[in-house]
Amino acid sequence: MSNWKLDSLRNLMKEKGIDLYYIPTADFHESEYVIDYFKARSYMTGFTGSAGVAVVTAEEAGLWTDGRYFIQAAKQLEGSGFELFKMGNEGVPTVQEFVKQKLPENGTIGFDGRCVNTRLGEEFQKIAEEKSGSLKTDEDLVDLIWTDRPALVSGPVFWMDEKYSGETVESKLNRIREKMKAEKADCHIVSSLDDVAWTLNIRGCDIKHFPVVLSYLVITEDKAVWFVDKNCVNEEIGGKLTAAGVEIASYGEIYSYVEKLPENGTILMERGTVNYRITGSMPSSVTIVDKQNPSVLMKATKNPVEVENIKKAHVQDGIAVTKFMYWLKKNIGTIPMTEISVSDYLEELRSRREGFVDISFGTISGYGANAAMMHYSATPESNAVLEPKGFLLVDSGGHYMTGSTDITRTFALGELTDEEKKFFTLVAKSNLNLANVKFLYGCSGVSFDILARGPLWQYGVDYQCGTGHGVGYMLSIHEKPNGFRWRFRADSNTVFEEGMITTDEPGVYIEGRYGIRTENELLCVKDEKNMYGQFMRFENITYAPIDLDAIDPAYLNEDDKRQLNEYHAMVYETIAPHLTDEEQEWLKEYTRAI
Amino acid sequence: MSNWKLDSLRNLMKEKGIDLYYIPTADFHESEYVIDYFKARSYMTGFTGSAGVAVVTAEEAGLWTDGRYFIQAAKQLEGSGFELFKMGNEGVPTVQEFVKQKLPENGTIGFDGRCVNTRLGEEFQKIAEEKSGSLKTDEDLVDLIWTDRPALVSGPVFWMDEKYSGETVESKLNRIREKMKAEKADCHIVSSLDDVAWTLNIRGCDIKHFPVVLSYLVITEDKAVWFVDKNCVNEEIGGKLTAAGVEIASYGEIYSYVEKLPENGTILMERGTVNYRITGSMPSSVTIVDKQNPSVLMKATKNPVEVENIKKAHVQDGIAVTKFMYWLKKNIGTIPMTEISVSDYLEELRSRREGFVDISFGTISGYGANAAMMHYSATPESNAVLEPKGFLLVDSGGHYMTGSTDITRTFALGELTDEEKKFFTLVAKSNLNLANVKFLYGCSGVSFDILARGPLWQYGVDYQCGTGHGVGYMLSIHEKPNGFRWRFRADSNTVFEEGMITTDEPGVYIEGRYGIRTENELLCVKDEKNMYGQFMRFENITYAPIDLDAIDPAYLNEDDKRQLNEYHAMVYETIAPHLTDEEQEWLKEYTRAI
Repeated sequence: MSNWKLDSLRNLMKEKGIDLYYIPTADFHESEYVIDYFKARSYMTGFTGSAGVAVVTAEEAGLWTDGRYFIQAAKQLEGSGFELFKMGNEGVPTVQEFVKQKLPENGTIGFDGRCVNTRLGEEFQKIAEEKSGSLKTDEDLVDLIWTDRPALVSGPVFWMDEKYSGETVESKLNRIREKMKAEKADCHIVSSLDDVAWTLNIRGCDIKHFPVVLSYLVITEDKAVWFVDKNCVNEEIGGKLTAAGVEIASYGEIYSYVEKLPENGTILMERGTVNYRITGSMPSSVTIVDKQNPSVLMKATKNPVEVENIKKAHVQDGIAVTKFMYWLKKNIGTIPMTEISVSDYLEELRSRREGFVDISFGTISGYGANAAMMHYSATPESNAVLEPKGFLLVDSGGHYMTGSTDITRTFALGELTDEEKKFFTLVAKSNLNLANVKFLYGCSGVSFDILARGPLWQYGVDYQCGTGHGVGYMLSIHEKPNGFRWRFRADSNTVFEEGMITTDEPGVYIEGRYGIRTENELLCVKDEKNMYGQFMRFENITYAPIDLDAIDPAYLNEDDKRQLNEYHAMVYETIAPHLTDEEQEWLKEYTRAI
Repeated sequence: MSNWKLDSLRNLMKEKGIDLYYIPTADFHESEYVIDYFKARSYMTGFTGSAGVAVVTAEEAGLWTDGRYFIQAAKQLEGSGFELFKMGNEGVPTVQEFVKQKLPENGTIGFDGRCVNTRLGEEFQKIAEEKSGSLKTDEDLVDLIWTDRPALVSGPVFWMDEKYSGETVESKLNRIREKMKAEKADCHIVSSLDDVAWTLNIRGCDIKHFPVVLSYLVITEDKAVWFVDKNCVNEEIGGKLTAAGVEIASYGEIYSYVEKLPENGTILMERGTVNYRITGSMPSSVTIVDKQNPSVLMKATKNPVEVENIKKAHVQDGIAVTKFMYWLKKNIGTIPMTEISVSDYLEELRSRREGFVDISFGTISGYGANAAMMHYSATPESNAVLEPKGFLLVDSGGHYMTGSTDITRTFALGELTDEEKKFFTLVAKSNLNLANVKFLYGCSGVSFDILARGPLWQYGVDYQCGTGHGVGYMLSIHEKPNGFRWRFRADSNTVFEEGMITTDEPGVYIEGRYGIRTENELLCVKDEKNMYGQFMRFENITYAPIDLDAIDPAYLNEDDKRQLNEYHAMVYETIAPHLTDEEQEWLKEYTRAI
């Protein structure tokens, strides 16, 4: 079976002497989400899920994706000529194993070197060498077929004034240069879009809900060059950056620039994010120091200005979510509601808040059994009608000039089963248990996870994902390096620093029945310092009630109740002043001490 | 300043062309405790603490030790000619830094290569090479001076029948050979004495409270050779080992044996435990695979026979400790008691128990402020008189044919302050909180630690050491690789397996006032298996009351009380049948539900 796209690609491959062509779902920066221009894999295969890669040979064509998408992929691949490879299933080869098997002696592996990170590119290189073969990485074959491809354009960037960023570009560059010196690096290449934006105090609008601009940043001892579409940078911003020692070059000039890097230099860069074509363009005599970008830890550790701002964003966000909850409780069963209609209404409430820029991700609005599917996203086809019973789970957030938010609340729309109340209560207990920890500086996420997961594990239940992730300041809603998870990973364990912001989101997901998640954001702050060391704790910076209609006090001991009441007292104090009289009265009831 | 020993050593050094001589406190096996024969550093310097190393040059002589011993060392070094180097203090060079500084160009570093592990030896080698110097490692210079040195003798070994070991020697060797194959190793050298003993199902009596015999084990694909003092192995045991494919060679023959290892072979061995002289004797063409001995994980994961036995040992041990507690409570203030006299009485009670072989370590008996010193050991000079008030902390254990124990109880001898009761209660809460966890297979110690430490951290207090360590089966009382601790270490994190036994020992130590520790041992067992994975939990295998006289219920919530009552009910059920009528009645009171 085939299709014209596959036929065209195979013709091109034959023409160019490529035996095996690899089509990822990636931009040039290893971004988590890609704009339509980069959806080459979707274009070729018909499969539109967010994660998947394709490999094409003269005889075969495969699409690899993970468990979230097996059903969707199986449907969408019909008639495409692509076979589905279910990643992680027994007997299913990885892409690398497949390539290794199928590549003939002296064969050529082809891919667009800009869409493959250096580490993966080097793996392909090794596979090719083992077969005395080679790579061809300077061509985007899909581009030659995709005649109605969306344009690759960047939108205008805007400036993050110091009242938002809390630090100047010069200061950030200085700090980064100190880290470079410690690694004896003369040059640092930054390709992650949020790291570039953070360093230069700019934001963009190139990717949906990810306010960054497609660009690279190269920093040397005395220079910094920003490779970006010059049309997006107005004179004022250009002037500010010049004053900070940052030159602007065109987006595509990065390749010729790195060709001219000094021989025998030392380059600090992440092999996992810098693309293979950049690395391939450098002089071969350079040494690469493959370590985390210094900006990763720096931007994760919010400064006092950012912290103050972020709290303001959360207050605004809390007002929106609280008003939403009030409206939902008052109107369920009276006015027609669907997953999408309520999600739209919440977005509208958010958009009215001060400083609002955009939502921070596509709202997850799941009613009843839909919420049990962790990656559920309401579509016109699946859009459920809300009834006055069971749970509605809403995971939403906003990008504000003062920061970003990510909050989940599970709302009781009416009658609940005993089991639903039990697990809702345990999830609340879990969430607050973690939030109230006090710890010695030096702890990393794996130390804390059991505080959230433990109460659920006692009942033989797990939520099968991490407990929390870092949150960027109008950047990525899933920001490294901090997080809460239970599995130890030798290469990744970040000590919690003052200023880090991490989500706390335990849940229970029972297939076919319901899904519960209660998510707050926790700010890491210093506590007392004494002979034992520097104690730290978390400050809850999410302000919205946890639905008391769903709480069964039998599952809370006295400490749990105290923690819940303290949290609710804070919510009332923070949010009530911003509500109408009726909303205030309602909030008093929904934050009452139990 | 000097002394005759130092003069003699310097003469020998001059004679043999050694510029710098290193004297550790080590046997040939990196054992935690060494027999008197190996106390060369104590002999030369006069400092008798358990940890410390010395370095001698023509002009200088230094003794390095850690914070536990600064005061003791300062006293004992007077007149020795050795200067005290306080390890870890600011400005104090490490031994390696000192050696690096003082070694002249083309100089020679000397040490007994048998008393230095391969990794450290290679560090010295590198330092010497940087000065175009060399090492001289085939001479034990102290031996030439120490005319009245204790003899290096091994005592008779005894057999661990399958009813104790639960596994034959053949089976253990087969399993180890599988691991060797996975590492492509043709040869495996085992130098850790507990690993050797475990593999061969033998025990010895060479080191105080550590029932092993000085020996090495070399395993190849079809042979195994045990290098031991042949006088210690009777005919019967010799026969059993021959039947299992194990040859016996003399202890000192290891060096000539490894000289004859095949060229270009691959040797699986721990650089951190195999001594430098062994490695230096091998052909230089061998490849060393430096990984944990396969027996480390194997012996830490007790089989069902061992588990049944160990529980029996703990019942016996619990009887002794419970009888001790009864006697203490009944007689304090009536008969004279000191730290040492009660410690002796407990040892006597233990020695009467079935299967008792020896105590597993020197009993720690600390009254009042003495217990606040974590490494306190009662001596005739410090021996405190017990009064009917405050706390007595007793950390003790036994080696039984059925296993080893390690338990700490803190006893209220009479009136306590509110603070003492508060912290005693929090320590009990901490201990039981960890003991009652339920978790998914895959967790390592760093995941759990906060369950024990958390309740104390809430009060700004920490016990400044790990929460627990593994326990061997009549082997080492501090057995790798399992443990509970809070600091992440990339190179060391063991997943908890069924059969692992780990101590749970939180505490509070307030200098000058009191010390509290409550230590139980936890057996890791499987719990339910469901769609989320394999759940695990811990079974408390220590059976002795936690002193209710010291509990302040205000610091326990309903879950804490339930856990304490459940534990005490189990203690009563397990121990009461073995007590006298009066003791039983007393135990009923001291395990009552609160």
